[in-house]
Amino acid sequence: MNQDNNKKRILTGDRPTGPLHLGHFVGSIESRVKFQDEYDLFYLIADVQALTDNHDNPEKVRSNVLQVAQDNLACGLDPNKSTIFIQSMIPEIAELTVYFMNLVSLNEVLRNPTVKTEIKEKNFGDSTPFGFVAYPVSQAADILVAKSNLVPVGKDQAPMIELSRVIARRFNTTYNSEIFPEPEAHFGVEKNLVGTDGDAKMSKSKGNTINLNDDEQTVIDKVKRMYTDPNRLKATDPGVIEGNPVFIYHDMFNDNKDEVNDLKERYKTGNVGDVEVKDKLALAINKFLDPIRERRKEFPIEKVEEIVMDGTKRTQEIAKETMQMVKQAMKIDY
Amino acid sequence: MNQDNNKKRILTGDRPTGPLHLGHFVGSIESRVKFQDEYDLFYLIADVQALTDNHDNPEKVRSNVLQVAQDNLACGLDPNKSTIFIQSMIPEIAELTVYFMNLVSLNEVLRNPTVKTEIKEKNFGDSTPFGFVAYPVSQAADILVAKSNLVPVGKDQAPMIELSRVIARRFNTTYNSEIFPEPEAHFGVEKNLVGTDGDAKMSKSKGNTINLNDDEQTVIDKVKRMYTDPNRLKATDPGVIEGNPVFIYHDMFNDNKDEVNDLKERYKTGNVGDVEVKDKLALAINKFLDPIRERRKEFPIEKVEEIVMDGTKRTQEIAKETMQMVKQAMKIDY
Repeated sequence: MNQDNNKKRILTGDRPTGPLHLGHFVGSIESRVKFQDEYDLFYLIADVQALTDNHDNPEKVRSNVLQVAQDNLACGLDPNKSTIFIQSMIPEIAELTVYFMNLVSLNEVLRNPTVKTEIKEKNFGDSTPFGFVAYPVSQAADILVAKSNLVPVGKDQAPMIELSRVIARRFNTTYNSEIFPEPEAHFGVEKNLVGTDGDAKMSKSKGNTINLNDDEQTVIDKVKRMYTDPNRLKATDPGVIEGNPVFIYHDMFNDNKDEVNDLKERYKTGNVGDVEVKDKLALAINKFLDPIRERRKEFPIEKVEEIVMDGTKRTQEIAKETMQMVKQAMKIDY
Repeated sequence: MNQDNNKKRILTGDRPTGPLHLGHFVGSIESRVKFQDEYDLFYLIADVQALTDNHDNPEKVRSNVLQVAQDNLACGLDPNKSTIFIQSMIPEIAELTVYFMNLVSLNEVLRNPTVKTEIKEKNFGDSTPFGFVAYPVSQAADILVAKSNLVPVGKDQAPMIELSRVIARRFNTTYNSEIFPEPEAHFGVEKNLVGTDGDAKMSKSKGNTINLNDDEQTVIDKVKRMYTDPNRLKATDPGVIEGNPVFIYHDMFNDNKDEVNDLKERYKTGNVGDVEVKDKLALAINKFLDPIRERRKEFPIEKVEEIVMDGTKRTQEIAKETMQMVKQAMKIDY
């Protein structure tokens, strides 16, 4: 590790609930890999957070901890530039969570637009888990345990980061300290990816993903079954391009723009079969995934484990320092 | 330490927010000292919990951590039988709190009668601290981190302990383990003590206490200013015994029952002055406090610190074991 301590720190992460897919790539990994040159990047494997709605399936979380790290390394996350760590191995995050809970009111959390929306979306009814409501506070602890300055998020998450800022500020004021920076949201280009079934979002739970670790044949099979223009019954029917997932993927993953334009033209005019469009898409996606597959070979799972343990150790040291300062400020440093 | 591991464990504790007083003695310390012969007693100095409503005054909490331990030792808590520990030095309590938060719903906590009553009493209005709402969950973590079987509480706290039982049960079921016992409330004789001002409760915040570390003269001065029958203006007026704090204290702390009966008789018939009643009470309370004062000399603050650090170390070892089992069950033991 040779992290530059003058760089600002940025915290990103994934929930280890399954192999990552193309949606993750365009939504976060792509920009994450760029961030590591400019910032001291911390990559959080959020196993504790994943357990909040998978507490009845800990095996799933366990088996994906190294998987998500490997997926990121395969995509170019560089262990010499970035620090990969496991959330549950940093008990200071739990300690900070408990201390931070005194600095916000229940209503402040419940009124938070991100929390409100997510509670509504999840349809918890009368039984919203307490841990879910506490999530914005634990997230503040995730961010602040390593004193991160930046957090790349979508616009919908802005109120969450705002709450982290409030908590940092209140801690500093209450305990007359300057321990915590006020972390800022880093809004990137928000790219969402439709599912192979045409659903607005590629999502493991919907079974409409193309995974970063899918092999060539799996990609070919998945593309073959992709949703296209449902009104186009034969190759001579004119088809619709807009919102058609096959062409959305062509636009995103096929670097042969002439080929894409040619296919679109012929599709609109009923001069190409779905098979040709999909064969070319499968080829393009496989070409896109090839360098990721190559890099994955450099990171067998034992190597990934080593990297994750190294990064966790570094984070543990930083967390210990933070907690020493926190306990000193709170006068509980016996 | 020679704790008997076949004994059931019992958890008790105090919030370190000021020197303990006679109200604490009759309310908890007296029975606590008896418990240590029958049970493996853990005494929690609840500094994290004290910070929940003193977060703007950490000095107060800090300065009372060893004070409350010393008060208990002076009253007969025996470091060879009991384990005294500081809450903030057991990070596993915070970890358990965070994990347990996923096992209960927000409504389950908010509907808990103890929580409901306390929120109403505290008059938080719109700004109940999140940490306050989370308190029943952290309390479950306090109890379960050392797998305590029993918790001595008043009847009003019964629903809190019930929630700890629910959490223990759900953890065991969810993670298919037998780690946690279902802790039981241990209802003792609930003794409440009126304040020197006649208020229903002796309480530091009301300034109506006689502290366990008050010296003789302070006791004399405090008793002199005590509230008695307000309708009795001179020694020849007949006075009321019932609810009269001076006689309540006589009944509790004066072991010369003949003297007490004689004073009561003369008070009711207007044959004794307040001065005599109070002088005799001050003498009785000082006699009651004398052995506590003697034992206090055996526990200078450096010795108290040593005892607390020893007990904390023992608790840390137990907490580590518990957490290892918890992480194994949750499959986050990397």
